[in-house]
Amino acid sequence: MHKKIQKPYVLHIGDDPRPEKSKIAMGAITFIPEDCVGYIANPDSLSLPNINKLSIEDAIQKGAKSFVIGSVAKSGAVEQEWIPHIVNAIENGLDIINGHHQKLNALKTASGETLEDLSKKHGTTLHNIRHYEDTLPIGTGKPRKGKRLLTVGTDCSCGKMFTSLSLHAYLTKKNVKSRFAATGQSGILIAGEGVPIDAIVSDYMSGAIEQLTPESDALTIIEGQGSLFHPAYAGVSLGLLHGAQADYIILCHNPAKDSMLNVDYPIPDIADCLALNLKLGRRTNPNQKCVGISLNTSALSEDDAKSCIKKLETEFKVPVTDPYRFGIAPIADKLAEEL
Amino acid sequence: MHKKIQKPYVLHIGDDPRPEKSKIAMGAITFIPEDCVGYIANPDSLSLPNINKLSIEDAIQKGAKSFVIGSVAKSGAVEQEWIPHIVNAIENGLDIINGHHQKLNALKTASGETLEDLSKKHGTTLHNIRHYEDTLPIGTGKPRKGKRLLTVGTDCSCGKMFTSLSLHAYLTKKNVKSRFAATGQSGILIAGEGVPIDAIVSDYMSGAIEQLTPESDALTIIEGQGSLFHPAYAGVSLGLLHGAQADYIILCHNPAKDSMLNVDYPIPDIADCLALNLKLGRRTNPNQKCVGISLNTSALSEDDAKSCIKKLETEFKVPVTDPYRFGIAPIADKLAEEL
Repeated sequence: MHKKIQKPYVLHIGDDPRPEKSKIAMGAITFIPEDCVGYIANPDSLSLPNINKLSIEDAIQKGAKSFVIGSVAKSGAVEQEWIPHIVNAIENGLDIINGHHQKLNALKTASGETLEDLSKKHGTTLHNIRHYEDTLPIGTGKPRKGKRLLTVGTDCSCGKMFTSLSLHAYLTKKNVKSRFAATGQSGILIAGEGVPIDAIVSDYMSGAIEQLTPESDALTIIEGQGSLFHPAYAGVSLGLLHGAQADYIILCHNPAKDSMLNVDYPIPDIADCLALNLKLGRRTNPNQKCVGISLNTSALSEDDAKSCIKKLETEFKVPVTDPYRFGIAPIADKLAEEL
Repeated sequence: MHKKIQKPYVLHIGDDPRPEKSKIAMGAITFIPEDCVGYIANPDSLSLPNINKLSIEDAIQKGAKSFVIGSVAKSGAVEQEWIPHIVNAIENGLDIINGHHQKLNALKTASGETLEDLSKKHGTTLHNIRHYEDTLPIGTGKPRKGKRLLTVGTDCSCGKMFTSLSLHAYLTKKNVKSRFAATGQSGILIAGEGVPIDAIVSDYMSGAIEQLTPESDALTIIEGQGSLFHPAYAGVSLGLLHGAQADYIILCHNPAKDSMLNVDYPIPDIADCLALNLKLGRRTNPNQKCVGISLNTSALSEDDAKSCIKKLETEFKVPVTDPYRFGIAPIADKLAEEL
């Protein structure tokens, strides 16, 4: 689908290394640390744990091949203050990986040159991984063989990619055949392939997911996006849900949040969210069921996290965990028995 | 949004003039007959009523400025057998209006020239009205003033555009201020502007509709698309529903159909479809309500159509009509009282 992305990466996080803002960088650090030589940040920014802060020159010395724009701008556009860093990387021979809607090609350097011209001059490549140029099919809704699991959520940024990747890593370790199907820019960066579902033409959403997750004897773990309750992105979540024809869903949730990402809407009730996902998901797979709830409890004390998990397990009668804090085993082990 | 489309039109329907296949042509004939000089079809195709069958030369003589590709190919691509007609039109100085996903520009004539080069040579314009190049915003879900109405449906192609345009025409005649907001290629052809919602990047679906239907003192009548139950297009319908923040919905339905457009899925129950639209629609407008059911009864006898209408009125306690057969007045008059 794209020109081959070259590893290892150096991750740029600008001046805002909060995990939520630096989602792309954090995903790479967590899941492919062996492919990340370090990160680049402004002098006054906070530090990231378990990874070196570097200059571009250091990164080159450590073998970096690609410079990853690791932060996500709310607007979907590339932020102006990142451009000098991008220019520096290109001039040092690095490819650039950009997960924003806005392509890098036409952006201009301080001297008025486009990044496309600059990168050509230095023999480097601009990868706009949030763009998909190939032809996609219209969805058919036809049943297909194999088992598929989709992560869904009460909001955006509540752990769907993390949960999917944790489950994939865990099952792989246990010799259960699984495959990770990436649907967002971070997932694509990690997996090296996928479909940026929110960046394709809307008519093809379900068809794109059908094509991405064909019949397979491995469990296909599909990275979810958005939420059926988010006023900006619910349509994307539904296209993904229908195309996935998932046998299993895992509901992801951050119990410390009151308001949905970037909008003035309350986080939906877990029970409502679960019921709506199953109701709509069963349109294309009548046997769909929930096999777990995955929490992001980072804002809770360990005791509070544990009692939250216990309460939800009692209420929903499915395994509940925080995969980052307590591991994915409770959900994964139960699921593995079914496969 | 696009280069100005020049009227009047000549409509090309190829060899399949069934209303469903020639949706774009039928829309123009029905709603802007004064802007259509006639239609072009293969010699052995059926005839359309109330409009002249012409050659390109006749069309030019009658003042045609643009050649409209009036049929819709299932694949979303332009059909090969239409190309000689398009070439003939360009060589005769007509602009081409194309509502398919596939752009005309790179398609080739029998002699290997691209349509783009051919049209440049003849000083004509290729309008790909299913493409939208301008920047769109992400949805906010913020409440906005004014009243909006959205047509929704149990399936694709069940009368959403027809109902919207009938209502707009009726209210305009009665001096009730209304505005038609087009979301598909036929509607855009008729209105001269709009957003092709199924052709934009999926992340922007709700935001595009928010932008298309700003605060207004006119009733904004929004053309619906697809169905929340269609396995290929439900995501588009939900993006549209959320972005519309509609105060009113009209449910459109064809009682003679068993199976959804192009897929092996049953048409949903009217009650289920209505309940789901209201449930999801109320996420962005808690006061949303249904103000009518609009039927396409073309496959029923007049008696059967009338008894179907009566039955649904009793069951759903809203006005029910077939706007093509019996007029939109039952729904429109009741609605006008509320405005």
